Amino acid sequence: MAQKLPYKSLVQLDRNASAALYVQVCNAFIALITKGILQPSDMLPSSRTLAELIGVNRNTIKLAYEELVSQGWAEAVERKGIFVNSKLPTAASRPLPDAHLGPHEAFVWHNRFRNALPSKDLQKAGLAIDDGFPDVRLAPIDHLMREYRSLSRKFYGKNFLRYGSSAGSERLRISITNYLSNTRGLTVSPENVLITKGSQMGIYLAAHLLLGAGDTIATGISNYLLADETFREAGGNILRIPVDACGMDIDYLEKALATTSIKAVYIIPHHHLPTTVTLSSERRLKLLDLAKTHRFAIIEDDYDFDFHYDNKPYLPLASIDHNQNVIYIGSISKTFAPALRIGFMVGSTEFVRAAASLRELIDRQGDTLMEEAFSVMFDNGEVDRHFRKSLKIYKERRDLFCDILASDFEEEISFNVPEGGLGIWTTFSPDINLHKMSHEAGRKGLYIDDGDFYKNESYATNALRMGFASLNEAEILKALKTLKEVLPNAR
Amino acid sequence: MAQKLPYKSLVQLDRNASAALYVQVCNAFIALITKGILQPSDMLPSSRTLAELIGVNRNTIKLAYEELVSQGWAEAVERKGIFVNSKLPTAASRPLPDAHLGPHEAFVWHNRFRNALPSKDLQKAGLAIDDGFPDVRLAPIDHLMREYRSLSRKFYGKNFLRYGSSAGSERLRISITNYLSNTRGLTVSPENVLITKGSQMGIYLAAHLLLGAGDTIATGISNYLLADETFREAGGNILRIPVDACGMDIDYLEKALATTSIKAVYIIPHHHLPTTVTLSSERRLKLLDLAKTHRFAIIEDDYDFDFHYDNKPYLPLASIDHNQNVIYIGSISKTFAPALRIGFMVGSTEFVRAAASLRELIDRQGDTLMEEAFSVMFDNGEVDRHFRKSLKIYKERRDLFCDILASDFEEEISFNVPEGGLGIWTTFSPDINLHKMSHEAGRKGLYIDDGDFYKNESYATNALRMGFASLNEAEILKALKTLKEVLPNAR
Repeated sequence: MAQKLPYKSLVQLDRNASAALYVQVCNAFIALITKGILQPSDMLPSSRTLAELIGVNRNTIKLAYEELVSQGWAEAVERKGIFVNSKLPTAASRPLPDAHLGPHEAFVWHNRFRNALPSKDLQKAGLAIDDGFPDVRLAPIDHLMREYRSLSRKFYGKNFLRYGSSAGSERLRISITNYLSNTRGLTVSPENVLITKGSQMGIYLAAHLLLGAGDTIATGISNYLLADETFREAGGNILRIPVDACGMDIDYLEKALATTSIKAVYIIPHHHLPTTVTLSSERRLKLLDLAKTHRFAIIEDDYDFDFHYDNKPYLPLASIDHNQNVIYIGSISKTFAPALRIGFMVGSTEFVRAAASLRELIDRQGDTLMEEAFSVMFDNGEVDRHFRKSLKIYKERRDLFCDILASDFEEEISFNVPEGGLGIWTTFSPDINLHKMSHEAGRKGLYIDDGDFYKNESYATNALRMGFASLNEAEILKALKTLKEVLPNAR
Repeated sequence: MAQKLPYKSLVQLDRNASAALYVQVCNAFIALITKGILQPSDMLPSSRTLAELIGVNRNTIKLAYEELVSQGWAEAVERKGIFVNSKLPTAASRPLPDAHLGPHEAFVWHNRFRNALPSKDLQKAGLAIDDGFPDVRLAPIDHLMREYRSLSRKFYGKNFLRYGSSAGSERLRISITNYLSNTRGLTVSPENVLITKGSQMGIYLAAHLLLGAGDTIATGISNYLLADETFREAGGNILRIPVDACGMDIDYLEKALATTSIKAVYIIPHHHLPTTVTLSSERRLKLLDLAKTHRFAIIEDDYDFDFHYDNKPYLPLASIDHNQNVIYIGSISKTFAPALRIGFMVGSTEFVRAAASLRELIDRQGDTLMEEAFSVMFDNGEVDRHFRKSLKIYKERRDLFCDILASDFEEEISFNVPEGGLGIWTTFSPDINLHKMSHEAGRKGLYIDDGDFYKNESYATNALRMGFASLNEAEILKALKTLKEVLPNAR
């Protein structure tokens, strides 16, 4: 009989919780009903009995019972009492798990991400030789906060908190067109620009619009891992193209096109990831001609454009393409701070409109207040000032980092000084075990990668990228000193 | 001969642009080369000649030529001059488009979003009867800004600008578990929580993990349009289930399961969108039992939980499910401000880990600084205070709005007073043309929907949702007065 249940232990109340006591009692009874401990038509204890048992005011119990009745879990029968709703389906007594949710679920699905590498979380890393990330301490976060505050206080600013366009803030799209024109000679209209959450969302959108199941996309034999995974997730097959000191081997691509039809090429012409090489002028023109002839798209990932230390940067493919084959992707996150997710994607009006429709299904829209704030900072020159300032600092850091690598790691590490970007591609002598190195460095308080992120099914080398930009002079000295100490234990 | 080209008009300089003059000259020549106007081995004019022609200092031209040579576009032949690189592929002279990018692109792709409804942009709407959105003027944006500022000034706060976990801020995941436990009796661990960009991203992630091409998902015959589109985009087929005053017809679903195998049910048990009905207790238990027997997932979209005016809200399915069949989705954007994109998804550890892997491909991670700021506001009670305050205000607005609908629109509109949520499902008499009404209202400065958003291939009615929450008393009076004036012209 339900009345003999040990309610004192079954109905546990937490007097410090923010939920009212009567709600806690009500929820406890719903749990007893849904677990099958109380069955349809079982009588509940009288409010007086229960109130005494669990030590609360009788009115609390009455309120709880009223709530159970109004929600349909219980029914009041006049002069008899309160009963579990007789119309509820009879529930077999269910086992009560210790924690509510365990590691596994009961429904059928195919987890194709079971073997995915966990994403790198550097927020608690301390001293870290990262993949080539910016120094967040240089980001003009005070200026950003000032614009946030200013916008959020204005009457019109409040409107930016409402639903907006899934293509992004109109004002930022205009600012970006000006910025692209001034820095890259790329003349487009705001309708050709979609504001994204970092360059990754640009890759994702382009991949899902271009690729269907079984479609082929060409990428470098070494390539940015998250791009490859995105293309596979979209259903694509990957055609690997060799990469040498002049970038992707476009002659190889041309030969492959004789037998293989492709939907797109994904390329980082400016500084190939991971090896940092730049695509030569000849290959640029040849790639554009192939795209025109074979009618494939070029996804040009140019997240690195703003960091170039010696020459002026090459113009992007998008700036010299006159046939609308290039989808151009850039990032502001990479130049400001990774956790401020802002980027852009440039394409034909139709392609951008389709990308905005897909983006609406993903997260509806971006954070308009942040987008507006960045627009102000583009327009008042703050973005430009930040680029110039950090470029100067990063060049000094690159030089210092490379000098030490050359002098102190001559036997262990070979590398080329990168013309731009925030990382150095370092190849280790074969007797050094990068997993061991990463582990040993971690024990001494230094985060450094184990190189797995740069390998894929057709590319393996004893190498990794070393980011120099996020470390100041003292930190570079300390990090490389630690690395040097660790290497003998990594053989 | 290249030397006879009209360089004065071909090399146009903008002295107000932020790009240096030599960069502009360099880019102009790259454009001439890539368009085929200058061919491989063509000689460039001497720096003296060109400097005079276009009226700049000769050193500017020299710098530009050096840049062209260093990038591989040109080559210097001693004692002869500067030539276009002879190794460049010969480019056929290409037509120069007026604007760089037009509406269409040259590559082959299938635009499955061509007929997508454009997303609603309410940021410039002025007076609007929306779909049921919060009043952004009530959002405690000053508090949010204060937490932002405070975090961004702290040494440890800067670390939140670095790359973090794609599952979201650990601290916010803990705050959300406490909030779910206190408000919904839902006891989970932070490993069961993924921070999303609003509830839409939860729907997107769940759909793409659960559905493959040709898989079936059951939804209400009337349903949230963006959810349906997301399921189709993921490759799913939609099985429509009738919805009555007690919510989705679970008996109908049970019969359908005899012949159709499904991967998931998408349901908004609390206030069905668009019609605002609540799923009854009997149907809740029956649905959970069916999920257990047939091993399908329940995607429970509970974006509306925090707004309930009469009873306490029903516990979510997730709180009474003891078989791990429910993926629970919620939103903070809907309670604070749509453009602040924060939501959460709750599931088994394995499902959440896979969702985090997929999310990494989409946008890498969320805005950690915002996530941390919201965590502070959950923990110090600010979120709770905002819920209570806005709930009181929204109840008053609902009552006023419904009173006027009942008294002034008796002949034109039928509706039920919603128990919760921010919108009223209003059915118009058949002689009123909603497109005409929307158009006529727009002419009088009132935004109101035309009802298309609520129709689908198997559901059409002369109805729409009217949001009461985003309008204050004076605005409600004004909006409904305008609507009343407009209706005679909409027949």
